[in-house]
Amino acid sequence: MTRGPQKQFDPEVALTKAMEVFWAHGYEAASLSELLKTMGIGKKSLYDTFGNKQSLFLKALEHYAQTTIRDMRDRLSADGSPLGNLTQLLLEFQEMHSQPGSCGCMLGTNIADFNTEDEAVAKVMRGYLRQVEDMFCTTLTRAQVAGEVNSTVNPRDLARLLLCTTQGMALLGRVMNDDTTLEGTVQAALCVLKGN
Amino acid sequence: MTRGPQKQFDPEVALTKAMEVFWAHGYEAASLSELLKTMGIGKKSLYDTFGNKQSLFLKALEHYAQTTIRDMRDRLSADGSPLGNLTQLLLEFQEMHSQPGSCGCMLGTNIADFNTEDEAVAKVMRGYLRQVEDMFCTTLTRAQVAGEVNSTVNPRDLARLLLCTTQGMALLGRVMNDDTTLEGTVQAALCVLKGN
Repeated sequence: MTRGPQKQFDPEVALTKAMEVFWAHGYEAASLSELLKTMGIGKKSLYDTFGNKQSLFLKALEHYAQTTIRDMRDRLSADGSPLGNLTQLLLEFQEMHSQPGSCGCMLGTNIADFNTEDEAVAKVMRGYLRQVEDMFCTTLTRAQVAGEVNSTVNPRDLARLLLCTTQGMALLGRVMNDDTTLEGTVQAALCVLKGN
Repeated sequence: MTRGPQKQFDPEVALTKAMEVFWAHGYEAASLSELLKTMGIGKKSLYDTFGNKQSLFLKALEHYAQTTIRDMRDRLSADGSPLGNLTQLLLEFQEMHSQPGSCGCMLGTNIADFNTEDEAVAKVMRGYLRQVEDMFCTTLTRAQVAGEVNSTVNPRDLARLLLCTTQGMALLGRVMNDDTTLEGTVQAALCVLKGN
């Protein structure tokens, strides 16, 4: 990202702000005027630095996904028990998405909001989902080898179940104002993974 | 719904059309002009018959939820094996949400899209989610009694897991263009429910 002397703003800060608007409202509902206001920049700066609304969105989504996926990968591949790492991650998701005012997952929110006929964006979204699925699969395979997870179920299928489950948790956390739904979900997921 | 002689439209048809717009785009992104165009009515007719945009949305959501929940209840409470009924329902969800152009679940899409600070709407959404959770819980309890589902896991927690999983399936079906993610999810869910 080139910073010319005429720019009075930090592109990374502005991008983080744009991410927050898309996260809270979704792509379509995020108006250009709210984006500009929250980013604290003018229309020309936006177009010069980020391109149009769609390319700004894709940059904001990349910023979100890279940060989130890297964080998940670090947690899941940490030393110690693979199931322990996964349990910790699910409990953190549960706590995070149970917070009042939780916006869910930026990727999931925008999957719901985006015009699904836009194949270029759908392809980017699928790519991020696959990365999460792959991470879950790697962790579940390690947990099966360690004898921590029921090894009669295909780890790839279990990873897909976890992907859908965690996306559902993030989504429902937007309206659920108590812990019970997400807590019960995590408890059941852990029980069935262990096979008891 | 009162039909005055001045009305040139069928309110139920118009409501179904409004539902389709909210379903595809979500509440915030559904513009009044698109709603009016798709419903084939003028602004005055809309306000006279359905009230403002929010009350139109709540009526459309009620129409969707009542139809969908009644259909699910009929399927899940049909004669025969409770797990068989649940399996059939999950396979139908899988097929439906794997279709190209799938819009997902109208309730889930709008949970992602709606301003979650609107507690009145959030409360309505929670009510529908609870109804689905209760249906799953009743079916899973019957399946446990019949020895079809692993009875070491709390059926209420399993119902919550299924609620999050099916909402995740509906969401991801919007961008997934192959069957594998949803198919793997259903296969894993059925395996772990049976406890094998």
